Amino acid sequence: MPFERVAIIGVGLIGGSFALALKQAKACGHVVGAGRSAANLKLARERGIIDSVADTGTAVKDADLVLVASPVGQFEDIFSLVAKNLKPSALVTDGGSTKRDVVAAARAALGPKLAQFVPAHPVAGAEKSGAGAASAELFRDRRVILTPVRENPDRAIARVEEAWTACGARVSRMTPEEHDAVLGVVSHLPHLLAYALVHEVASRENSAQLFSFAAGGFRDFTRIASSHPEMWRDICAANKDRLAEELSRFSRKLDEVKRLLDDPAALEKLFAEARAARDAWIRSS
Amino acid sequence: MPFERVAIIGVGLIGGSFALALKQAKACGHVVGAGRSAANLKLARERGIIDSVADTGTAVKDADLVLVASPVGQFEDIFSLVAKNLKPSALVTDGGSTKRDVVAAARAALGPKLAQFVPAHPVAGAEKSGAGAASAELFRDRRVILTPVRENPDRAIARVEEAWTACGARVSRMTPEEHDAVLGVVSHLPHLLAYALVHEVASRENSAQLFSFAAGGFRDFTRIASSHPEMWRDICAANKDRLAEELSRFSRKLDEVKRLLDDPAALEKLFAEARAARDAWIRSS
Repeated sequence: MPFERVAIIGVGLIGGSFALALKQAKACGHVVGAGRSAANLKLARERGIIDSVADTGTAVKDADLVLVASPVGQFEDIFSLVAKNLKPSALVTDGGSTKRDVVAAARAALGPKLAQFVPAHPVAGAEKSGAGAASAELFRDRRVILTPVRENPDRAIARVEEAWTACGARVSRMTPEEHDAVLGVVSHLPHLLAYALVHEVASRENSAQLFSFAAGGFRDFTRIASSHPEMWRDICAANKDRLAEELSRFSRKLDEVKRLLDDPAALEKLFAEARAARDAWIRSS
Repeated sequence: MPFERVAIIGVGLIGGSFALALKQAKACGHVVGAGRSAANLKLARERGIIDSVADTGTAVKDADLVLVASPVGQFEDIFSLVAKNLKPSALVTDGGSTKRDVVAAARAALGPKLAQFVPAHPVAGAEKSGAGAASAELFRDRRVILTPVRENPDRAIARVEEAWTACGARVSRMTPEEHDAVLGVVSHLPHLLAYALVHEVASRENSAQLFSFAAGGFRDFTRIASSHPEMWRDICAANKDRLAEELSRFSRKLDEVKRLLDDPAALEKLFAEARAARDAWIRSS
């Protein structure tokens, strides 16, 4: 049994799925859950995601592996409790969607225990949230990006990688800076665009008419605008320098597209290049 | 049998699905297909979508109902052939995604036969194209927007509405101007945004890395960037005044979002409003 006792701080989509996947892989014994919502923890117990409920400090105290999977805005408080309670042999990982801020918060709060924390981002979101949405298959063949700190012993990184691999994930490593730049483009920016478009449509005087003629393309394009507002507020706050830059670059791209409205052949070429790039990506993924 | 003989000009996703749906509803007899690609017409015959193949003029000559479902850029030439060959009792409709340009082309080419043409837009695209993608169910519960011209007798509009209703569609009426404004927001703009984002990612030096960490959110957001480039070139050309205006408005929206990166509470509010609007739409649709 790689991890006898696992503590999940925040038993939502990510935390709950991590617990279910480890259980399915027989990679853990007892799972204890902590979190803000008693109703969600009750549901997590009923679904067999966790075996017991505790406050965060108590949950951490006996754990061999701790997953911090709350909204990133709460990480600093949680890390303080981890610092006070984590036993020397235990490891910590997280499910935060941004990494520079998580590493900074860990560095500030964990002190010498920073070496036991191996930051991770499972790139496997969904617009669903809560324990009710958790699934043992969420991470299957999905990317998990580790952004180790220089204090991590190789053994700690390897053990945390083992846990995510047991969940079915394909694990990579990056620096926190590289992580936030890459995800800023392929995840955070599209979320902002989707939220912005839906908000724009909803703000129009004829929004009821507009929505009533929106079809499948609009539905898929805006699926990520049904994502968790608090989580995305924290992601944007953590990555705001990158996102400001990406929004500016994308606005310049839209200026280019706008100019090409007067040059149909060039516009068709841009469409064809985009389609070819996307189709190649879909084939390879 | 409402329509004894139906001619489909352009037996792609829309034209092929219209034929299959009418046949399934037993609302037509013989279906003749015309189009640019012999291979596509052969496939359409093999799939039982059409019963025979002819050139456009011949196909129109004996038809009781003609559907023009080619890329909109070809409509003018096709309407000239329709003007020469259409019999007085026959009706014409189309599958064009823009309506001001289609009505203008029809007005220019059809002469007195304009009264027999009831413009339509089935809002049921997909990123697939060609006869191979056609399905009798494509229009089931989907919107079809008729934009009648003042020359249309009520009886002509009612008969064309009957054909689309037989395909399972929910039929509405608008002016061509209203149609292009509404679709500009909920269909054309998202297509431009999706194409622009994929093109932006593909243009970066680290595009291979970016694509390799793109996940399900990116896949759904960009699905419409796999749409037909020629068709979307024509749509953008036909609706370019509206699209230029919508791109400008959306850029201003992105400026607002960029400012809100410094105001997390207001950004979360925008996200929550967008999610609520989208979720209400999904529930009602």
